[in-house]
Amino acid sequence: MELLDRATAWSWLGSAVEEARTGLAEGGVPIGAALYGADGTLLGRGHNRRVQDDDPSTHAETAAFRAAGRQRTYRGTTMVTTLSPCWYCSGLVRQFGISRVVIGEAVTFRGGHDWLAAHGVEIVLLDDPDCVAMMRDFIGSNPALWNEDIGE
Amino acid sequence: MELLDRATAWSWLGSAVEEARTGLAEGGVPIGAALYGADGTLLGRGHNRRVQDDDPSTHAETAAFRAAGRQRTYRGTTMVTTLSPCWYCSGLVRQFGISRVVIGEAVTFRGGHDWLAAHGVEIVLLDDPDCVAMMRDFIGSNPALWNEDIGE
Repeated sequence: MELLDRATAWSWLGSAVEEARTGLAEGGVPIGAALYGADGTLLGRGHNRRVQDDDPSTHAETAAFRAAGRQRTYRGTTMVTTLSPCWYCSGLVRQFGISRVVIGEAVTFRGGHDWLAAHGVEIVLLDDPDCVAMMRDFIGSNPALWNEDIGE
Repeated sequence: MELLDRATAWSWLGSAVEEARTGLAEGGVPIGAALYGADGTLLGRGHNRRVQDDDPSTHAETAAFRAAGRQRTYRGTTMVTTLSPCWYCSGLVRQFGISRVVIGEAVTFRGGHDWLAAHGVEIVLLDDPDCVAMMRDFIGSNPALWNEDIGE
Protein backbone atom coordinates (compact mmCIF):
# COMPACT_ATOMS: atom_id res chain seq x y z
CA MET A 1 0.00 0.00 0.00
CA GLU A 2 1.22 3.48 -0.80
CA LEU A 3 2.17 5.79 2.02
CA LEU A 4 -0.62 8.22 2.86
CA ASP A 5 0.49 11.83 2.56
CA ARG A 6 -0.34 14.11 5.47
CA ALA A 7 -2.49 16.49 3.41
CA THR A 8 -4.76 13.63 2.36
CA ALA A 9 -4.91 12.26 5.89
CA TRP A 10 -5.96 15.65 7.28
CA SER A 11 -8.45 16.20 4.50
CA TRP A 12 -10.03 12.80 5.16
CA LEU A 13 -10.12 13.56 8.88
CA GLY A 14 -12.13 16.64 7.94
CA SER A 15 -14.98 14.41 6.72
CA ALA A 16 -14.99 12.51 9.99
CA VAL A 17 -14.93 15.77 11.98
CA GLU A 18 -17.92 17.05 10.00
CA GLU A 19 -19.79 13.88 10.95
CA ALA A 20 -18.83 14.31 14.60
CA ARG A 21 -20.08 17.91 14.60
CA THR A 22 -23.35 16.82 12.99
CA GLY A 23 -23.76 14.26 15.76
CA LEU A 24 -23.04 16.89 18.39
CA ALA A 25 -25.64 19.24 16.87
CA GLU A 26 -28.17 16.39 17.04
CA GLY A 27 -27.49 15.99 20.76
CA GLY A 28 -25.44 12.83 20.25
CA VAL A 29 -21.99 11.50 21.04
CA PRO A 30 -19.60 13.56 18.82
CA ILE A 31 -17.60 10.87 17.10
CA GLY A 32 -17.48 10.67 13.32
CA ALA A 33 -15.89 8.35 10.80
CA ALA A 34 -15.45 7.80 7.08
CA LEU A 35 -14.32 4.82 5.01
CA TYR A 36 -12.14 5.56 1.96
CA GLY A 37 -11.41 3.17 -0.86
CA ALA A 38 -7.96 2.17 -2.07
CA ASP A 39 -8.29 4.74 -4.87
CA GLY A 40 -9.22 7.52 -2.44
CA THR A 41 -12.98 7.43 -3.15
CA LEU A 42 -15.24 8.10 -0.19
CA LEU A 43 -17.18 4.84 0.31
CA GLY A 44 -19.28 5.89 3.29
CA ARG A 45 -19.36 8.15 6.34
CA GLY A 46 -21.39 8.38 9.50
CA HIS A 47 -21.47 9.19 13.18
CA ASN A 48 -22.38 7.66 16.51
CA ARG A 49 -26.18 7.29 16.80
CA ARG A 50 -26.68 5.99 20.34
CA VAL A 51 -28.82 8.95 21.38
CA GLN A 52 -30.44 9.79 18.04
CA ASP A 53 -31.66 6.24 17.24
CA ASP A 54 -31.56 4.75 20.73
CA ASP A 55 -29.05 2.41 19.13
CA PRO A 56 -26.01 1.26 21.12
CA SER A 57 -24.64 -0.67 18.14
CA THR A 58 -24.03 2.33 15.92
CA HIS A 59 -20.62 3.73 16.70
CA ALA A 60 -19.13 6.12 14.15
CA GLU A 61 -17.01 3.44 12.49
CA THR A 62 -19.89 0.96 12.19
CA ALA A 63 -22.05 3.75 10.73
CA ALA A 64 -19.43 4.53 8.07
CA PHE A 65 -18.94 0.81 7.38
CA ARG A 66 -22.71 0.32 6.96
CA ALA A 67 -23.02 3.39 4.75
CA ALA A 68 -20.35 1.96 2.44
CA GLY A 69 -22.60 -1.04 1.78
CA ARG A 70 -21.43 -4.50 0.82
CA GLN A 71 -17.90 -4.64 -0.57
CA ARG A 72 -16.17 -7.67 -1.97
CA THR A 73 -12.93 -6.72 -0.24
CA TYR A 74 -11.64 -4.05 2.13
CA ARG A 75 -8.04 -4.47 1.05
CA GLY A 76 -6.50 -1.04 0.65
CA THR A 77 -9.35 0.78 2.39
CA THR A 78 -8.83 3.34 5.15
CA MET A 79 -11.11 3.90 8.14
CA VAL A 80 -10.85 7.48 9.32
CA THR A 81 -12.19 8.26 12.78
CA THR A 82 -12.08 11.25 15.10
CA LEU A 83 -11.26 9.01 18.10
CA SER A 84 -9.15 5.93 18.74
CA PRO A 85 -11.43 2.96 17.89
CA CYS A 86 -12.90 0.98 20.79
CA TRP A 87 -12.59 -2.84 20.86
CA TYR A 88 -15.85 -3.20 18.99
CA CYS A 89 -14.68 -0.95 16.15
CA SER A 90 -11.15 -2.32 16.25
CA GLY A 91 -12.62 -5.79 15.86
CA LEU A 92 -14.54 -4.55 12.81
CA VAL A 93 -11.31 -3.29 11.23
CA ARG A 94 -9.46 -6.52 11.91
CA GLN A 95 -12.23 -8.90 10.83
CA PHE A 96 -12.87 -7.19 7.53
CA GLY A 97 -9.24 -6.59 6.69
CA ILE A 98 -9.40 -2.81 6.52
CA SER A 99 -5.79 -1.86 5.77
CA ARG A 100 -5.34 1.48 7.48
CA VAL A 101 -6.87 3.57 10.29
CA VAL A 102 -6.45 7.34 10.47
CA ILE A 103 -7.21 8.60 13.99
CA GLY A 104 -7.97 12.15 15.08
CA GLU A 105 -6.90 11.64 18.67
CA ALA A 106 -6.23 9.01 21.33
CA VAL A 107 -5.90 11.30 24.35
CA THR A 108 -9.44 11.26 25.75
CA PHE A 109 -9.87 7.54 24.98
CA ARG A 110 -7.37 4.92 23.92
CA GLY A 111 -8.99 1.95 22.20
CA GLY A 112 -7.50 -1.00 20.33
CA HIS A 113 -5.27 0.71 17.80
CA ASP A 114 -2.02 -0.75 19.17
CA TRP A 115 -3.58 -4.21 18.84
CA LEU A 116 -4.49 -3.39 15.25
CA ALA A 117 -0.95 -2.22 14.53
CA ALA A 118 0.36 -5.50 15.99
CA HIS A 119 -1.89 -7.30 13.50
CA GLY A 120 -0.60 -5.45 10.47
CA VAL A 121 -3.00 -2.52 10.21
CA GLU A 122 -1.30 0.78 9.37
CA ILE A 123 -2.13 3.36 12.04
CA VAL A 124 -1.89 7.11 11.37
CA LEU A 125 -2.46 9.06 14.59
CA LEU A 126 -2.89 12.76 13.83
CA ASP A 127 -3.11 14.10 17.40
CA ASP A 128 -5.59 16.78 16.41
CA PRO A 129 -6.12 19.29 19.26
CA ASP A 130 -9.59 20.19 17.90
CA CYS A 131 -10.70 16.56 18.17
CA VAL A 132 -9.32 16.42 21.72
CA ALA A 133 -11.17 19.62 22.68
CA MET A 134 -14.44 18.38 21.21
CA MET A 135 -14.35 15.10 23.15
CA ARG A 136 -13.05 16.71 26.34
CA ASP A 137 -15.96 19.18 26.33
CA PHE A 138 -18.45 16.43 25.58
CA ILE A 139 -17.16 14.03 28.25
CA GLY A 140 -17.01 16.83 30.81
CA SER A 141 -20.65 17.73 30.19
CA ASN A 142 -22.00 14.17 29.67
CA PRO A 143 -19.97 11.74 31.76
CA ALA A 144 -22.81 9.19 32.19
CA LEU A 145 -23.63 9.11 28.47
CA TRP A 146 -19.96 8.73 27.62
CA ASN A 147 -19.48 5.87 30.06
CA GLU A 148 -22.54 4.16 28.62
CA ASP A 149 -21.09 4.47 25.12
CA ILE A 150 -17.89 2.69 26.08
CA GLY A 151 -19.55 0.19 28.42
CA GLU A 152 -18.04 1.55 31.64
CA MET B 1 -21.64 -14.82 38.44
CA GLU B 2 -23.57 -18.05 38.94
CA LEU B 3 -22.64 -21.08 36.89
CA LEU B 4 -24.96 -21.53 33.94
CA ASP B 5 -26.68 -24.92 33.98
CA ARG B 6 -26.61 -26.90 30.74
CA ALA B 7 -30.39 -27.00 30.35
CA THR B 8 -30.56 -23.20 30.39
CA ALA B 9 -27.61 -22.90 28.01
CA TRP B 10 -29.26 -25.25 25.50
CA SER B 11 -32.63 -23.56 25.87
CA TRP B 12 -31.01 -20.16 25.20
CA LEU B 13 -29.18 -21.60 22.22
CA GLY B 14 -32.61 -22.57 20.91
CA SER B 15 -33.54 -18.89 20.57
CA ALA B 16 -30.37 -18.20 18.59
CA VAL B 17 -31.00 -21.24 16.36
CA GLU B 18 -34.54 -20.01 15.65
CA GLU B 19 -33.04 -16.70 14.55
CA ALA B 20 -30.51 -18.47 12.33
CA ARG B 21 -33.26 -20.53 10.69
CA THR B 22 -35.31 -17.39 10.08
CA GLY B 23 -32.28 -15.84 8.40
CA LEU B 24 -31.80 -18.93 6.27
CA ALA B 25 -35.47 -18.88 5.19
CA GLU B 26 -35.00 -15.23 4.17
CA GLY B 27 -32.09 -16.22 1.94
CA GLY B 28 -29.51 -14.83 4.36
CA VAL B 29 -26.45 -16.01 6.27
CA PRO B 30 -27.83 -18.45 8.90
CA ILE B 31 -26.30 -17.12 12.10
CA GLY B 32 -28.50 -16.13 15.02
CA ALA B 33 -27.91 -14.64 18.44
CA ALA B 34 -29.70 -13.57 21.60
CA LEU B 35 -28.67 -11.43 24.56
CA TYR B 36 -29.89 -12.54 28.00
CA GLY B 37 -29.89 -10.43 31.14
CA ALA B 38 -28.29 -11.37 34.44
CA ASP B 39 -31.73 -12.50 35.67
CA GLY B 40 -32.30 -14.70 32.61
CA THR B 41 -34.63 -12.27 30.82
CA LEU B 42 -34.32 -12.18 27.04
CA LEU B 43 -33.11 -8.65 26.24
CA GLY B 44 -32.94 -8.94 22.46
CA ARG B 45 -32.39 -11.39 19.61
CA GLY B 46 -31.57 -11.15 15.93
CA HIS B 47 -29.78 -12.62 12.96
CA ASN B 48 -27.26 -11.70 10.30
CA ARG B 49 -28.83 -9.28 7.79
CA ARG B 50 -26.09 -8.83 5.16
CA VAL B 51 -28.28 -10.12 2.35
CA GLN B 52 -31.71 -9.03 3.59
CA ASP B 53 -30.77 -5.38 4.30
CA ASP B 54 -27.66 -5.12 2.14
CA ASP B 55 -25.99 -4.37 5.46
CA PRO B 56 -22.51 -5.73 6.17
CA SER B 57 -22.55 -4.32 9.70
CA THR B 58 -25.38 -6.48 11.00
CA HIS B 59 -23.96 -9.72 12.22
CA ALA B 60 -26.19 -11.84 14.46
CA GLU B 61 -24.56 -10.60 17.67
CA THR B 62 -24.79 -6.92 16.70
CA ALA B 63 -28.45 -7.48 15.73
CA ALA B 64 -29.22 -8.97 19.16
CA PHE B 65 -27.24 -6.21 20.87
CA ARG B 66 -29.15 -3.52 18.94
CA ALA B 67 -32.50 -5.18 19.64
CA ALA B 68 -31.73 -5.07 23.37
CA GLY B 69 -31.54 -1.29 23.17
CA ARG B 70 -29.52 0.96 25.44
CA GLN B 71 -28.50 -0.67 28.72
CA ARG B 72 -26.73 1.01 31.58
CA THR B 73 -24.53 -2.03 32.12
CA TYR B 74 -23.93 -5.42 30.52
CA ARG B 75 -22.50 -6.93 33.67
CA GLY B 76 -23.96 -10.40 34.12
CA THR B 77 -25.40 -10.58 30.60
CA THR B 78 -24.89 -13.53 28.26
CA MET B 79 -24.51 -13.34 24.50
CA VAL B 80 -25.74 -16.56 22.90
CA THR B 81 -24.70 -17.21 19.32
CA THR B 82 -24.94 -20.15 16.95
CA LEU B 83 -21.32 -19.63 15.78
CA SER B 84 -18.04 -18.62 17.37
CA PRO B 85 -18.02 -14.79 17.30
CA CYS B 86 -15.80 -13.11 14.71
CA TRP B 87 -13.36 -10.34 15.78
CA TYR B 88 -16.03 -7.70 15.19
CA CYS B 89 -18.51 -9.44 17.49
CA SER B 90 -15.81 -10.47 19.97
CA GLY B 91 -14.80 -6.82 20.17
CA LEU B 92 -18.42 -5.92 20.93
CA VAL B 93 -18.49 -8.41 23.80
CA ARG B 94 -15.22 -7.15 25.25
CA GLN B 95 -15.96 -3.42 24.87
CA PHE B 96 -19.35 -3.58 26.51
CA GLY B 97 -18.33 -5.97 29.28
CA ILE B 98 -20.74 -8.75 28.38
CA SER B 99 -19.91 -11.42 30.97
CA ARG B 100 -20.55 -14.68 29.18
CA VAL B 101 -20.80 -16.08 25.65
CA VAL B 102 -22.67 -19.30 24.86
CA ILE B 103 -21.57 -20.67 21.47
CA GLY B 104 -23.35 -23.25 19.33
CA GLU B 105 -20.24 -24.34 17.45
CA ALA B 106 -16.70 -23.34 16.56
CA VAL B 107 -15.96 -26.03 13.97
CA THR B 108 -16.88 -24.28 10.72
CA PHE B 109 -15.43 -20.95 11.93
CA ARG B 110 -13.27 -20.13 14.92
CA GLY B 111 -13.45 -16.48 15.90
CA GLY B 112 -12.15 -14.60 18.93
CA HIS B 113 -13.58 -16.62 21.79
CA ASP B 114 -10.20 -17.71 23.17
CA TRP B 115 -9.21 -14.04 23.26
CA LEU B 116 -12.39 -13.27 25.15
CA ALA B 117 -11.70 -16.08 27.62
CA ALA B 118 -8.21 -14.65 28.16
CA HIS B 119 -9.88 -11.33 29.02
CA GLY B 120 -12.20 -12.79 31.63
CA VAL B 121 -15.30 -13.60 29.60
CA GLU B 122 -16.88 -16.95 30.49
CA ILE B 123 -17.14 -19.11 27.37
CA VAL B 124 -19.62 -21.99 27.11
CA LEU B 125 -19.02 -23.95 23.90
CA LEU B 126 -21.89 -26.38 23.28
CA ASP B 127 -20.52 -28.16 20.17
CA ASP B 128 -23.99 -28.56 18.70
CA PRO B 129 -23.94 -30.88 15.67
CA ASP B 130 -27.10 -29.22 14.28
CA CYS B 131 -25.37 -25.82 14.26
CA VAL B 132 -22.36 -27.37 12.54
CA ALA B 133 -24.57 -29.01 9.89
CA MET B 134 -26.47 -25.77 9.21
CA MET B 135 -23.27 -23.76 8.64
CA ARG B 136 -21.56 -26.54 6.70
CA ASP B 137 -24.50 -26.75 4.29
CA PHE B 138 -24.64 -22.99 3.95
CA ILE B 139 -20.91 -22.51 3.37
CA GLY B 140 -20.85 -25.40 0.88
CA SER B 141 -23.64 -23.82 -1.16
CA ASN B 142 -22.60 -20.15 -0.76
CA PRO B 143 -18.81 -19.94 -0.45
CA ALA B 144 -18.53 -16.42 -1.92
CA LEU B 145 -21.23 -14.99 0.34
CA TRP B 146 -19.66 -16.62 3.37
CA ASN B 147 -16.21 -15.28 2.54
CA GLU B 148 -17.70 -11.83 2.10
CA ASP B 149 -19.34 -12.06 5.52
CA ILE B 150 -16.05 -12.77 7.26
CA GLY B 151 -13.96 -10.45 5.09
CA GLU B 152 -11.98 -13.14 3.32
